[in-house]
Amino acid sequence: MAFPPDATLSDAGEFGLIGALTALFDQPEDVLVGPGDDAAVLRVRSGHVVVSTDLMVEGRHFRRDWASAEDVGHRAAAQNLSDVNAMGGRATALTIGLAAPADLPAQWALDLARGFADECRPLGATVVGGDLARADEVVIAVTVLGACTVAPVLRSGARPGDVLALCGRQGWAAGGLAVLGRGFRSPRVLVEAYRRPDPPYDAGRIAAEAGATAMIDVSDGLVADAGHLAADSGVAIDVRTAGFEVPEPLQAVGAALGADPLQFILGGGDDHALLATFAEADVPEGWQVIGAVADGEGVTVDGAPYEGPSGWTHF
Amino acid sequence: MAFPPDATLSDAGEFGLIGALTALFDQPEDVLVGPGDDAAVLRVRSGHVVVSTDLMVEGRHFRRDWASAEDVGHRAAAQNLSDVNAMGGRATALTIGLAAPADLPAQWALDLARGFADECRPLGATVVGGDLARADEVVIAVTVLGACTVAPVLRSGARPGDVLALCGRQGWAAGGLAVLGRGFRSPRVLVEAYRRPDPPYDAGRIAAEAGATAMIDVSDGLVADAGHLAADSGVAIDVRTAGFEVPEPLQAVGAALGADPLQFILGGGDDHALLATFAEADVPEGWQVIGAVADGEGVTVDGAPYEGPSGWTHF
Repeated sequence: MAFPPDATLSDAGEFGLIGALTALFDQPEDVLVGPGDDAAVLRVRSGHVVVSTDLMVEGRHFRRDWASAEDVGHRAAAQNLSDVNAMGGRATALTIGLAAPADLPAQWALDLARGFADECRPLGATVVGGDLARADEVVIAVTVLGACTVAPVLRSGARPGDVLALCGRQGWAAGGLAVLGRGFRSPRVLVEAYRRPDPPYDAGRIAAEAGATAMIDVSDGLVADAGHLAADSGVAIDVRTAGFEVPEPLQAVGAALGADPLQFILGGGDDHALLATFAEADVPEGWQVIGAVADGEGVTVDGAPYEGPSGWTHF
Repeated sequence: MAFPPDATLSDAGEFGLIGALTALFDQPEDVLVGPGDDAAVLRVRSGHVVVSTDLMVEGRHFRRDWASAEDVGHRAAAQNLSDVNAMGGRATALTIGLAAPADLPAQWALDLARGFADECRPLGATVVGGDLARADEVVIAVTVLGACTVAPVLRSGARPGDVLALCGRQGWAAGGLAVLGRGFRSPRVLVEAYRRPDPPYDAGRIAAEAGATAMIDVSDGLVADAGHLAADSGVAIDVRTAGFEVPEPLQAVGAALGADPLQFILGGGDDHALLATFAEADVPEGWQVIGAVADGEGVTVDGAPYEGPSGWTHF
């Protein structure tokens, strides 16, 4: 379904909009009750449920001129699906709360939902419920539910002697964001990496099965998130930059903007790569060793305190 | 923990604030992993999970000058707990997304969380995760998870010949809101009903066990929500006002404001009463028969179309 191009949320009306939005989401067999009742009801096969919530606020987490509504949907979904990935689990169901001005184009909301559905579909996850409310700015609140087939991997299990390993693209989205921030639109591969992250969705489960001792998804920044692992595990972590290859597009952006391209990798957080610790022999294929765990506390980079941007903070 | 009275969210800082907030929430045994990791992990005993999401936006769903932060916490929790109640279930866990300006008093956020925790505690439910983000206005996004011990009661099961029944206070909060809207603070019992709803939290499960055929919580307004039951069940519903006693404080407010007090009952939605249909012999104690289900479609009041306010719409 589509609304006329100039129709706003207000024109579409709450119930018309909800009908059009919910039609975009497949409802697989394990969704016993889908959208439209007081609550959804899901079959849970594993005896537990993994749950996480994230907010995205226009102007802070996205800009409508930097990413299409579909891109924002992909990013919002990826950010949440990735939280389940970081526990070693599989996402099953999501809810979306959309607070938005009455003059938001109805098509923007539909495109957002379409991006969301497309990001979820390959994982077998879907949107089972949500809420709409009027607000001065666009706020997208997502909750994801999931399941683990092995014990969830927490942030707190890293042990001295473990190695630190990374899976997935890292720094690409930060490079793309830096490019957009200067008013450019290329290198396209980085801008696209920002607009549509490509998290390693299978890697969390594989890492859990391989015996990962601690895991986190990189959302605050690689060094900042290594810091969360170190703090929660009561250990020291040294990130070793020799472990990174700096991809060519990041080198190009660094040169163009006069920045050290390594800073995109160490400080960036929008790719939703996974960071985990393992006994050295347990590191699965596709993971890159980028550091080591020792007795102590805090994070160092190549043995020295990190002087770069300290990662994303909200307040 | 308390922050200095003049400390803002910005002063408290994201991590300090999260620590102070999460300390307010008990974590019972079925919370395998509580706040602080990429996701929470809950034990699920019933093989399914009930899930619902609601948004509350400052200026639309609450005003900081009309209700304290603790009241807003109670209301936000009640609104969500009630959605599980309306399925015939028991709420177990909630997540809260709080988007707020950097200059919001940190104590406001703590008081909100305290109200939330206090509303959840008697039910054995708790907050297991959440997110904080900076925004221009306060938006509270809540997701509730729960379980049913019998089959969930949907909106779609009402049958011609059933009776319509109501459980819980209805219209009191709307009366309180009308009073506040005129700048008054009394009758206190109505203002308090608006600030701290008192939903009949056990009634949903009892109704489900008694064989309720359809159920909804009154949040859009009694007639509007009866309309949802009628539409989803493919039946006609007649609300019979002879079934209502108009409580004295509502009579007083009606007289003072020159309004028909019955309109608060028919149009109000903030008490989170339950509306359900039953075979006449199945109506449990504590429920009041207020109407009848027949072949046809739509809602009538005393056999005639309803001319009053049509209930809450967001856009």
